[in-house]
Amino acid sequence: MKNALNHQFRLASRPAGMVGREHFDYVEEPVPDLKEGEALVKILYISLDPAMRGWMNEGRSYVPPVALGEVMRAGTVGQVIDSRSEKLSAGAYVSSWLGVQEYAVADASALLEIDPGLAALPTYLGALGMPGMTAYFGLLDVGAPKEGETVLVSAAAGAVGSVVGQIAKLKGCRVVGIAGGPEKCGWIVDQLGFDAAIDYKGQDVARALKQHCPEGIDVYFDNVGGEILDAALARLARGARVVICGAISQYNNLDSMTGPSNYMSLLVNRARMEGFVVIDYIGRYPEAMREMAGWIADGRLVAREDVVEGFDAFPDALVKLFKGENTGKLVLKVSDDT
Amino acid sequence: MKNALNHQFRLASRPAGMVGREHFDYVEEPVPDLKEGEALVKILYISLDPAMRGWMNEGRSYVPPVALGEVMRAGTVGQVIDSRSEKLSAGAYVSSWLGVQEYAVADASALLEIDPGLAALPTYLGALGMPGMTAYFGLLDVGAPKEGETVLVSAAAGAVGSVVGQIAKLKGCRVVGIAGGPEKCGWIVDQLGFDAAIDYKGQDVARALKQHCPEGIDVYFDNVGGEILDAALARLARGARVVICGAISQYNNLDSMTGPSNYMSLLVNRARMEGFVVIDYIGRYPEAMREMAGWIADGRLVAREDVVEGFDAFPDALVKLFKGENTGKLVLKVSDDT
Repeated sequence: MKNALNHQFRLASRPAGMVGREHFDYVEEPVPDLKEGEALVKILYISLDPAMRGWMNEGRSYVPPVALGEVMRAGTVGQVIDSRSEKLSAGAYVSSWLGVQEYAVADASALLEIDPGLAALPTYLGALGMPGMTAYFGLLDVGAPKEGETVLVSAAAGAVGSVVGQIAKLKGCRVVGIAGGPEKCGWIVDQLGFDAAIDYKGQDVARALKQHCPEGIDVYFDNVGGEILDAALARLARGARVVICGAISQYNNLDSMTGPSNYMSLLVNRARMEGFVVIDYIGRYPEAMREMAGWIADGRLVAREDVVEGFDAFPDALVKLFKGENTGKLVLKVSDDT
Repeated sequence: MKNALNHQFRLASRPAGMVGREHFDYVEEPVPDLKEGEALVKILYISLDPAMRGWMNEGRSYVPPVALGEVMRAGTVGQVIDSRSEKLSAGAYVSSWLGVQEYAVADASALLEIDPGLAALPTYLGALGMPGMTAYFGLLDVGAPKEGETVLVSAAAGAVGSVVGQIAKLKGCRVVGIAGGPEKCGWIVDQLGFDAAIDYKGQDVARALKQHCPEGIDVYFDNVGGEILDAALARLARGARVVICGAISQYNNLDSMTGPSNYMSLLVNRARMEGFVVIDYIGRYPEAMREMAGWIADGRLVAREDVVEGFDAFPDALVKLFKGENTGKLVLKVSDDT
């Protein structure tokens, strides 16, 4: 495999509005040689996450932006095909941040070995990966739902939202999800056990919230921002917690973000709105992964991935994500394992 | 005094934008007779508060709106001039919610007797009244500042903001205030001991925040909303608390409120934004009043009132409030005590 050709998507320019193919350079270069302590990984799956849009902007957020000319940052699952480290042997499966490329050389200490017997490989980018950790800690630590409370989640058929709703059900909450289109809405109710779904593309969200959250919303887990955040704020229960996880409706705005004009509902309802960043919980990932893997094995947590095939499809897959066309965790399948 | 003439301002119509004289009817009617258990109060001072604008809107907020035709709701300090209750004798000074009128008959149980020896009468509408309670519980309970932290407060020369900043100083914080004009800014620094003041009418608030809050803002006590809230969000420190107390810049908007477009700073900085309503703390008012009265007596807390003279000046005084022309607690002086 040594010195095989590697293909990469590198950041070519910073998008002003919607991201597209034109913001990436497709580059071909030989795989570099291994140094002591390193491993060569063949990338099998690449994660597509809403946060990627933010990393393409200039200016530091909670992590530095991707530099122009740099391989686009992404979570990956791959297989070690050559190793100069005692920690990892060829054949091992690993999860890491290797970026949008077919092969990568990395220090073995940056590669987390994963067990393909415990869950399907792409699940390590979804329910057992960053989205799952985001759902777990954001809901349980920041939202802190109590049994019998009403939990609302947006982007409810997405990688994070679908897990948030299922964990809330496991904790004895009434769960309402907002998603786009009848298929996604049907899936979260019929397959994931949500109590109700609201189709924001076909329904008046404010009216539907009134119907499905008659006592108000105790925890709102927000992945989308914009009008849906405003509609949720208008229906908060006394003492509600609004978890700010993302704002995918706003990431590709040409102008600045739209703020929630109903934020004074926080005052009227003695409520709080709180943000978090999942990497702060990294020390507790093993605990969460163990519990979540148990739920998956029991069939109490459904982990679903939406798999787009082929490395070259990366830019299209990213657009699909921001158009909200995926159901479950969106991943790019780069290669079969060897 | 019985059956003397009473003058009142009653709500005539609900304002769409800025409140004005035209939204009130000036009414003259005889003072009603006293029933058993009631007292007749001559109103000496009427409180002018930002919240009054919200009470004039249709639709329930944390309290019901003032009905059309009803005497405008307001906090008052007055003197009992006749009593059919054993609890209160003529001559007693009382604080209550008697509305914008010259006389009122009320059940004695709705009147809180106050001590004119402990503080000046209008102070019971300011530092020892609802604004003072708002500052005390909003800062200490919701903002929870720690010694050495940076506390920012807007409307810092107003009834609530001036007390917030002084309590934060008493707790060992670095305190920055935002106010309109050099006079107010000079007052909060020179007389109240704030570490710095930002004149939002003459300075670039974002740039000034960078200068005066080099380590970021740990607690932002927001009385104004709008652009200043956005500028503060952009400078939050990790783990910051934003206390939502009011949004006076937005209350007279013709359109809907403007939401804070920088709210995703809550995510980046793992920060929270939380609202509260001071009446929830009513059981703890005595504790706070004792402590605040002690600070006033010691000279550690400056209580200042901006007194407008004459009952008929009520609508103009209200406009003055929303134009931000008062320094300290704005009150209307209706009458000298007898």
